[in-house]
Amino acid sequence: MSFTVLTSTLVKVPSDSHFSIYNLPFGIFSIEGEPDEKRRVGVAIGEYVLDLAYLANKGLFDKEFENSGSSPGYVFSQPTLNHFMSLGRPIWKGTRQKLQDFLSNPNRYIVDPTLPQSAGVEATSTLWEREKYLVEQSRAAMHIPANIGDYTDFYASKEHATNVGCMFRGKDNALMPNWVHLPVGYHGRSSSIVVSGTPLHRPSGQRLPNKDQPPVFGPSKRLDFELEMGFFVGPKTNLGEPLTMETVEDHIFGVVLLNDWSARDIQAWEYVPLGPFLGKNFGTTISPWVVTVDALEPFLVPQPKQVPEPLPYLRDTKDSGYDIVLDVELKPNGHDEFSRICRSNLKYMYWTIKQQLVHHTVNGCNIRPGDLCGTGTISGPIEDSYGSLLELSWSGQKDVLVGKDGSITRKFIEDGDEVKLIGYCSNPEGNYIVGFGECVGKILPPKPTPYD
Amino acid sequence: MSFTVLTSTLVKVPSDSHFSIYNLPFGIFSIEGEPDEKRRVGVAIGEYVLDLAYLANKGLFDKEFENSGSSPGYVFSQPTLNHFMSLGRPIWKGTRQKLQDFLSNPNRYIVDPTLPQSAGVEATSTLWEREKYLVEQSRAAMHIPANIGDYTDFYASKEHATNVGCMFRGKDNALMPNWVHLPVGYHGRSSSIVVSGTPLHRPSGQRLPNKDQPPVFGPSKRLDFELEMGFFVGPKTNLGEPLTMETVEDHIFGVVLLNDWSARDIQAWEYVPLGPFLGKNFGTTISPWVVTVDALEPFLVPQPKQVPEPLPYLRDTKDSGYDIVLDVELKPNGHDEFSRICRSNLKYMYWTIKQQLVHHTVNGCNIRPGDLCGTGTISGPIEDSYGSLLELSWSGQKDVLVGKDGSITRKFIEDGDEVKLIGYCSNPEGNYIVGFGECVGKILPPKPTPYD
Ligand SMILES: [Ca+2]
Ligand SMILES: [Ca+2]
Ligand SMILES: [Mg+2]
Ligand SMILES: [Mg+2]
Ligand code: NI
Repeated sequence: MSFTVLTSTLVKVPSDSHFSIYNLPFGIFSIEGEPDEKRRVGVAIGEYVLDLAYLANKGLFDKEFENSGSSPGYVFSQPTLNHFMSLGRPIWKGTRQKLQDFLSNPNRYIVDPTLPQSAGVEATSTLWEREKYLVEQSRAAMHIPANIGDYTDFYASKEHATNVGCMFRGKDNALMPNWVHLPVGYHGRSSSIVVSGTPLHRPSGQRLPNKDQPPVFGPSKRLDFELEMGFFVGPKTNLGEPLTMETVEDHIFGVVLLNDWSARDIQAWEYVPLGPFLGKNFGTTISPWVVTVDALEPFLVPQPKQVPEPLPYLRDTKDSGYDIVLDVELKPNGHDEFSRICRSNLKYMYWTIKQQLVHHTVNGCNIRPGDLCGTGTISGPIEDSYGSLLELSWSGQKDVLVGKDGSITRKFIEDGDEVKLIGYCSNPEGNYIVGFGECVGKILPPKPTPYD
Repeated sequence: MSFTVLTSTLVKVPSDSHFSIYNLPFGIFSIEGEPDEKRRVGVAIGEYVLDLAYLANKGLFDKEFENSGSSPGYVFSQPTLNHFMSLGRPIWKGTRQKLQDFLSNPNRYIVDPTLPQSAGVEATSTLWEREKYLVEQSRAAMHIPANIGDYTDFYASKEHATNVGCMFRGKDNALMPNWVHLPVGYHGRSSSIVVSGTPLHRPSGQRLPNKDQPPVFGPSKRLDFELEMGFFVGPKTNLGEPLTMETVEDHIFGVVLLNDWSARDIQAWEYVPLGPFLGKNFGTTISPWVVTVDALEPFLVPQPKQVPEPLPYLRDTKDSGYDIVLDVELKPNGHDEFSRICRSNLKYMYWTIKQQLVHHTVNGCNIRPGDLCGTGTISGPIEDSYGSLLELSWSGQKDVLVGKDGSITRKFIEDGDEVKLIGYCSNPEGNYIVGFGECVGKILPPKPTPYD
């Protein structure tokens, strides 16, 4: 792969940063201590956040937004990315390219007001004051990037579906007959989607510890994470208007890490016949920075071969897999260090995200900017690439090592444990990283319920 | 039951009107032809809509909103009911009572400006001009009453679950073991919820006409309605804070009719193991007027006896069923008249709406104003009380008569058919009706898909 070398001269970016000039993910931030802690749009670069509301109000994106019908100052001052997501690919791409130019050629934009101004440049002296638009990430509070109208979770990893199927229904019924014909999906809960860093209490609910006894109520004993990615929807569609494998590309804005926390015992008891409900909807954690599909384009790889060939509406003739390394780390309660318990990759996923979204709309179901789709747990072919404790501990039959000395193990998540998902792409030459940062969450003890 | 007789003297209400002075449901309307067709809050009375934005701006609700922290003029000028729903029971109740007083004692509020004003009344001469705040329903366009953050559908009728279970899984596995222990529910799609009167195209998708052959793609051949009611959530809860059987009463705003359109062939093929998805999310229709739980209080009846006794968090010791007559009418394509194909009643429902919402939050799942919960199909004990064509035609094995001469029959919905749900309560003395109006939808032929 060949590419133009870009270097951020405005901000020094450490070579191992997830937020290189080739990334430029969008997020919603506020500055703690500011009078109203106003939420607005930012872009991550190295250890900084670029304040897009400020830059837009200075006119930086006027050209890119010319035909959008929206003012960039207004769009980037919103407390969510929904409006920006609605504007579509050319505006997203233009904004990212303008930022790459701004970061790599700051002198074209920034003129020391004490010097005589050179002619014929886009320079504006107000952009001299870096502290107005560059915020250290340590000072920024990150928020949920969008108002999520609908959240859908797929089940698109063949390895995961096979593993879970074996445990829940036995080897012979592991993969349901529909699985190879369509990306199985179900609707999830929007209200309980939280941003990385938000702690969650262990949920309580009904479970059936003994098949010959009635169900009991109490805190879940089989609490789990699920390693997923999520993608945000861009421009809306109208009810009754399906997307195709071609048009879908303009409707995916970008990608985040997603931890679909799951209470396996609650889920196992409740899920027949209408699917997971309380076993899932107590909380879902996403990373704050949305990496655009444009930034991910260099990491496209072929998806796994699909046999049997899908129906025509699902045929994806392009390379639509993504080579994204995905790690899960766990910090056990009372300890100081995270240790890795899983390394997977988005490229293992059987159904591509484009196939997922096309299938979602094939019946005319409409989508809206800010809708979120989870890929489903991303498990790989080998044992330590399994994306959940259910699979890693094989339904609690095996100990999973967490920590270096071999004395700390887990079957499921314990109170006080923290789970961190990490994801990144790097090009073969090792020139740069496009990363997702972290998606972290701590499980607090169950709250006393009003029924105790 | 004894009650104070109220009569609307401001507006004459026909005795068979669903919108008596004892009802006063809230909705969102606009007036076709008005410059900006501004959406705002209205209340139905007889054949009119009261413009609450206008009345609020005249100060009618100042006292009721005194401690709400919100201005009634602002709240009732919103294009959705979400803000009003967030304010809680005392404000809803106060607003309804003030309207009952306004309608039955208009002279206390309305003074002919040509007469000398009498002292000591709340009268305001501006309310004299009826045409400013009374709009004929025929001139009003009704809209979706809330911005629905999350939509959940339950499965709370034992008759329905048993009927469907028999057909999908055989008599022995009809009711799953969990069914009598918890109100089974699943998440649905918010984006495709439409208001009564919105036509929908027949959805296309994958189905498996022949078990020994691969699935095929095309328009659904087993399109169905589901007779449900939906309830809107009032004040929010925080993540991690379950409701109880006592606190839940303050979190239910009101009730609508709901048609959960279902493509049975798509659903049957896709639904294992994660539940219904494209078989449902192409469209859900609700009635525009939200009948408050206060208006429904006189119609509370005991729910069916629950055996085995539910776990403590689900024990409902009050009468929490509602005696609401529910009819489904179908107008076959090419014909002029609706004919009734089902009469059911909300009182048949096994799990109460309070139990549904408590169960929904028992794991800490948070709810937000404007969230919508469907009860699930409401089938009764006898054959013509079944709330879907799937049950009425027993999975297509029997003809369902639609029309008087017996020559028109249906197994499932055909293109051009219209389905209407109607619901109402009437007190034993027959003094008045509290009704839901209609929930109607027409099925248009499938759109040519981009894959044909
Ligand atoms: Ca999942
Ligand atoms: Ca339903
Ligand atoms: Mg979850
Ligand atoms: Mg539906
Ligand atoms: Ni049309």
